[in-house]
Amino acid sequence: MNRIELNKIDSKAPKDADKEALKKELFSLHKKMFSLQHLFYANASKSMLIIFQGMDTSGKDGTIRHVFSCVNPLGVHASAFSEPCDKERVHDFLWRIYQQLPEKGMIRIFNRSHYEDILVPTVHRMLDDKLIERRYDYINSFEQQLEDSGTIILKFYLLISRDEQKKRLEKRLKDPLKKWKYKASDKTESKKWNDYIRTYENIISRCSPAIPWQVIPADDKWYRNYLVAKTIVGKLESLKMKYPGDEK
Amino acid sequence: MNRIELNKIDSKAPKDADKEALKKELFSLHKKMFSLQHLFYANASKSMLIIFQGMDTSGKDGTIRHVFSCVNPLGVHASAFSEPCDKERVHDFLWRIYQQLPEKGMIRIFNRSHYEDILVPTVHRMLDDKLIERRYDYINSFEQQLEDSGTIILKFYLLISRDEQKKRLEKRLKDPLKKWKYKASDKTESKKWNDYIRTYENIISRCSPAIPWQVIPADDKWYRNYLVAKTIVGKLESLKMKYPGDEK
Repeated sequence: MNRIELNKIDSKAPKDADKEALKKELFSLHKKMFSLQHLFYANASKSMLIIFQGMDTSGKDGTIRHVFSCVNPLGVHASAFSEPCDKERVHDFLWRIYQQLPEKGMIRIFNRSHYEDILVPTVHRMLDDKLIERRYDYINSFEQQLEDSGTIILKFYLLISRDEQKKRLEKRLKDPLKKWKYKASDKTESKKWNDYIRTYENIISRCSPAIPWQVIPADDKWYRNYLVAKTIVGKLESLKMKYPGDEK
Repeated sequence: MNRIELNKIDSKAPKDADKEALKKELFSLHKKMFSLQHLFYANASKSMLIIFQGMDTSGKDGTIRHVFSCVNPLGVHASAFSEPCDKERVHDFLWRIYQQLPEKGMIRIFNRSHYEDILVPTVHRMLDDKLIERRYDYINSFEQQLEDSGTIILKFYLLISRDEQKKRLEKRLKDPLKKWKYKASDKTESKKWNDYIRTYENIISRCSPAIPWQVIPADDKWYRNYLVAKTIVGKLESLKMKYPGDEK
């Protein structure tokens, strides 16, 4: 197993990336996604699950908002997983996930996911190591089962630097448009930065490459949005779909 | 009660409507909706339920696809109600509706709705008249209850002419991009046009004006999309929302 080291990956856009050109490109990716998603829905032969993980303020909400601002809400649903509620806690950790899985033809976006059930117990030492170990296996087996039954899984890790997180947390405190997102826990969680990074490295290393994680440099939002949209459109195009009854 | 007569309402765009201008206007409504929906989500103080009904081919899917191609899937969900499945049939008709109601901050779109449970039994004479009568009252009471608990309800009836339906059904048979939508029942249902219209007139007359139905001329898609988007943006603007913590 090749262990990934997140602090060796640049969280900024490449120096030679042309911001204005890529913003235009994102616009054209939006148009492609609008058509491809409709085709995916019409075909109803596969489903797609798109998972976003990343540190607080890494831009999970923003990515979803900006990348998918071009799709039909009848065919694309998003689910956010926060701390499990009482009813969820009395089930196994995949129970609430199962209820949000996409039907054929549908695209489901996860803002956080079953990976939180490795992350949080590891960082906060809430579970025995052996039990956490087994969750890696359960998750690999669960995702493999989904793929085998026709669900395409895309997993994005949004990579930001610690400096960028600090900036964004400060902005949450000051900017009236961001203030509502601030939680008291943001600061205490931020102190556990290294523990989270180490756990994410485990996750990304152990839960790839069969169903690979994509690490997305996310300090620059325009680059992050472009890269995520490009990956999704690329995947949809690779399916070479036709409208049903139009297969020649 | 003023009874509405659908065949006296023009299903086309007004003669003086400027197609190119309204298409541009739709683009700017999209931008407004993108911001307003985010504000609605951030506030999380009300929820919104948007219902679409209309004859087959009236453009329910298309309206949803084109009007909401500018919103965050984390804050906007859509549900389609087709014929009830076995599990739904053993509950009262509002059971499956309840499960799809929006939480605070969320917008939920219904492609068909609880009104199908008046429409289909009436046209196909599947239920005793008295029972159907009572469903009108149940629905009025149900919607009032939702409004009282902070759900804003918008109800759109997409009005097409019978000629336009014929054209669109033929297109479904020929156009490779539409073919997948054709169902054998489309033709038999079309024969019951007058029964459906009469039932819709009952519904629109009796389930307004407390929570009013908007009748949208829908023969011209560009006009239909514009009008629906304008109504929704107007409603959201009327709430005069601010970001939480920014109320001065």
